[in-house]
Amino acid sequence: MHDARKTRKCLEDFEDGTTFRYRVPGLTAEEIKAFAAQYDPQRFHLDEHAASETHFGGLVASGFQTQLKCFGPFCREALLDTSAVGAPGIDNLKWLRPWYPGEDLNVVVTLTGKRMSAKRTDRGYLSVSLLADVKGEPVLSMEWVIIMLTRQGQADAHAKAAGVAQA
Amino acid sequence: MHDARKTRKCLEDFEDGTTFRYRVPGLTAEEIKAFAAQYDPQRFHLDEHAASETHFGGLVASGFQTQLKCFGPFCREALLDTSAVGAPGIDNLKWLRPWYPGEDLNVVVTLTGKRMSAKRTDRGYLSVSLLADVKGEPVLSMEWVIIMLTRQGQADAHAKAAGVAQA
Repeated sequence: MHDARKTRKCLEDFEDGTTFRYRVPGLTAEEIKAFAAQYDPQRFHLDEHAASETHFGGLVASGFQTQLKCFGPFCREALLDTSAVGAPGIDNLKWLRPWYPGEDLNVVVTLTGKRMSAKRTDRGYLSVSLLADVKGEPVLSMEWVIIMLTRQGQADAHAKAAGVAQA
Repeated sequence: MHDARKTRKCLEDFEDGTTFRYRVPGLTAEEIKAFAAQYDPQRFHLDEHAASETHFGGLVASGFQTQLKCFGPFCREALLDTSAVGAPGIDNLKWLRPWYPGEDLNVVVTLTGKRMSAKRTDRGYLSVSLLADVKGEPVLSMEWVIIMLTRQGQADAHAKAAGVAQA
């Protein structure tokens, strides 16, 4: 109950063209290897020596780890106190350059579009574009769409949650 | 040196149309929340009560966690002893249905295409399509391209690694 009554940002509170900028601290070799062991154990993410014999020339982060490290701060800064209810997917995730240990990433996330659902008044869609670079060299880009409730949608959700709690 | 001399599967060893099938065990609520706390702390991934008040009706895995859990077994089974050298990105990642705690995923990965690089004789590209479902209900799909060395490319890499080791 407590959570459902909280005032959250809704679709109406976001503006097309808004940008979020942040820095992602470089990973240590240990962080890269620990992630790889769990999720993506290709040799160039897992072992310095084996990686040095590939075209990467040394250990590089899994592209999935890069993706997560880029997404996390945006999620914390822009999504947590909102009525975002997920995303249908990710479009055009590109790994443009390997991410080596110790390299800080500069990330810019831009809200590139905002539209109402054609069918429902309770929600709309924010188009988002993320670009990460190391000293101006693009490392990762991705685009996706966030499903965000409108004020009407949030009011409906509160009413439903209250009804459930009373039942 | 040891690693570089190992015989790895090359582009020539893969056939268009090959499929890999496996099962991904359902996650516990604790696994979902631990991942969310680190990478994607939206309330429907982090807190059962808050999640129950959203349209998900309960805790659901982060789509990124679903993606990683689907990719891992394919990576271990199909990529580790190969001359794969990364991927340029992921195309069309779709989250088609939430993944709830305790639901096993059925995953099918299909090699949907194979082609040589137009510019280089040392590599080619495998197109890959992954589909995960719960009891026939699609949960996640994604497509991507794996860069894979040819026999010539692997021989070149071995020669280069040997040269580096001697230097």
